[in-house]
Amino acid sequence: MNLAPLAEVTRGGRVESLHAGAVAVVNSRGELLYHAGDPDFPTFTRSTLKPFQALPFMRDGGAAHFGFGSRELALMCASHSGEPMHVDLVQAMLAKAGCDEHHLRCGCHVPIHYATADQRPAAEECFSQLHNNCSGKHAGFLAYCVQHGLPLDTYIDAQHPLQQAIRQDVARIVALPESDLMPGIDGCSAPNYAMPLSRLALGYARLAQGGSAPEYGNELGQLFDAMTSHPELVSGSGRADLAFMQAAPGDWVAKGGAEGVQAIGIRSAGLGIAIKVADGNARALYPAAIAILQQLGLMDAGASAPLAPWMQPLLRNLRGLATGDIRATVRLVQA
Amino acid sequence: MNLAPLAEVTRGGRVESLHAGAVAVVNSRGELLYHAGDPDFPTFTRSTLKPFQALPFMRDGGAAHFGFGSRELALMCASHSGEPMHVDLVQAMLAKAGCDEHHLRCGCHVPIHYATADQRPAAEECFSQLHNNCSGKHAGFLAYCVQHGLPLDTYIDAQHPLQQAIRQDVARIVALPESDLMPGIDGCSAPNYAMPLSRLALGYARLAQGGSAPEYGNELGQLFDAMTSHPELVSGSGRADLAFMQAAPGDWVAKGGAEGVQAIGIRSAGLGIAIKVADGNARALYPAAIAILQQLGLMDAGASAPLAPWMQPLLRNLRGLATGDIRATVRLVQA
Repeated sequence: MNLAPLAEVTRGGRVESLHAGAVAVVNSRGELLYHAGDPDFPTFTRSTLKPFQALPFMRDGGAAHFGFGSRELALMCASHSGEPMHVDLVQAMLAKAGCDEHHLRCGCHVPIHYATADQRPAAEECFSQLHNNCSGKHAGFLAYCVQHGLPLDTYIDAQHPLQQAIRQDVARIVALPESDLMPGIDGCSAPNYAMPLSRLALGYARLAQGGSAPEYGNELGQLFDAMTSHPELVSGSGRADLAFMQAAPGDWVAKGGAEGVQAIGIRSAGLGIAIKVADGNARALYPAAIAILQQLGLMDAGASAPLAPWMQPLLRNLRGLATGDIRATVRLVQA
Repeated sequence: MNLAPLAEVTRGGRVESLHAGAVAVVNSRGELLYHAGDPDFPTFTRSTLKPFQALPFMRDGGAAHFGFGSRELALMCASHSGEPMHVDLVQAMLAKAGCDEHHLRCGCHVPIHYATADQRPAAEECFSQLHNNCSGKHAGFLAYCVQHGLPLDTYIDAQHPLQQAIRQDVARIVALPESDLMPGIDGCSAPNYAMPLSRLALGYARLAQGGSAPEYGNELGQLFDAMTSHPELVSGSGRADLAFMQAAPGDWVAKGGAEGVQAIGIRSAGLGIAIKVADGNARALYPAAIAILQQLGLMDAGASAPLAPWMQPLLRNLRGLATGDIRATVRLVQA
């Protein structure tokens, strides 16, 4: 297993824990330009798959059919924080499709924004599936089924026509035979796929290329525009993906996934970047991603400001004393 | 960096994430018997240090002075869950020393038992420093200061006579020069030390040896007896350390620490085992520890029953669907 250092966690100036993984940087033809560790590390894409899971809906005119604008499209690609701006819009999307919260099959969890804000919800407070970070994606899934007269209650089954259509589109975008997409069940119960890390990077290079990739129609361009126009809907207040997309507005599209996955597409450079922390811990991801952007020559002063809190975060203990920090150790190698 | 596989996390039957680290198995003379990865991996001991942090108190007759029995001694070595049995006893210990919650310098956090039970406390509910998992240790720190007429408000400073005494005792027990103990500040603000992993294992071999190690007095034996007699006070309901100590009552002493550290002492075999997950994630620790105990020939049917939930835990998503599991991959090598 060829893993490369990504980041280390210090205490008292010494390394306490360390994170290794893999990085792939490709252009929109899928050519590997830089890597660290195995650029083909088999990687469950998790929530980085969301823009590609929206492709069947986009291709069949779902946005126009239901009157979904760029805000709704951004939310279909989101791992949102469950803030009112997210929850209210998901509810409106479901209503436009003639559905409601009870049609969702994503499950419930405490909204992400509580953890981001270091707050606790009331014990008696209940959260519906609308608060699930994937509820926008699932609202899009349901809308597709309504438009095509497909069964609603089985929309997350791997054999459902929607999931079959998604699988075909994912395979097409990352240029793999469908049989090379390794299936698993995601946290939100939808089918998810593992693929070589470099193919996830290719997907994001093509997403960033957007409208200038005519062989993929203009749906990728619409999704790129939606995500970069409404990054607060794709993630949430205080989140890393929001900071990455604010760092280079309209140029960088960023999406994280569970178990230490990060994908970034850079329109101006024609690049896709994918990172997997082998142990799954996201704390290594942001310092490593910023170091990678620096090594690619993409970080200017404007980009550095919003990303400053994520660059080498100080770690504090329960009484606020600084105990250490997280430092990037990744070194890109030219392919 | 010589790391060995410890465990892997699967999804859909394929590896999604993996954990590497180091293992040392030594006897009470400190001779290395088995290892995986670097047995001298520099390891911040974190909460596995607690029994040794109690040594100055024990050596100077603190238990008799304050009327602390085996329950109080167990709690001094605890990373407790903040259940009523823990909080009430810490309060009583502080009262016996003429102190109260306001003398503590450990800070506040949501009691561990909420996470263990997958519950949420009320947003408005406040937790005092009594609920901190380290409050028993800190109560012992304060009692030592009261007995010796030392300043109370600076008891966690590295230069305080208590912390200097602890440092000397730790160095003696793990057979290192004091200058080889690498300092850092723990989550509870007390000084903590990094040392080669094999030296932490030596500490636990000696702790398990207990009363039969006359050169260390009988204080280690008293602490071993206290911890193994009251494992529910050392950890808490539903916790792994409780399961390890219930697996071989009065024979195995087990203590975990933050950032993926586990130490186990086996009285009957005269062994100390120390494990560090390099990335700091405890989820790898329990399947790996059980596999290590199996490979050492120490797991019988009686031990397997309480540890069954920790052996190869099934992972479920938000709707309860099984998505994968955690599997040990560690292989001990004879030294």
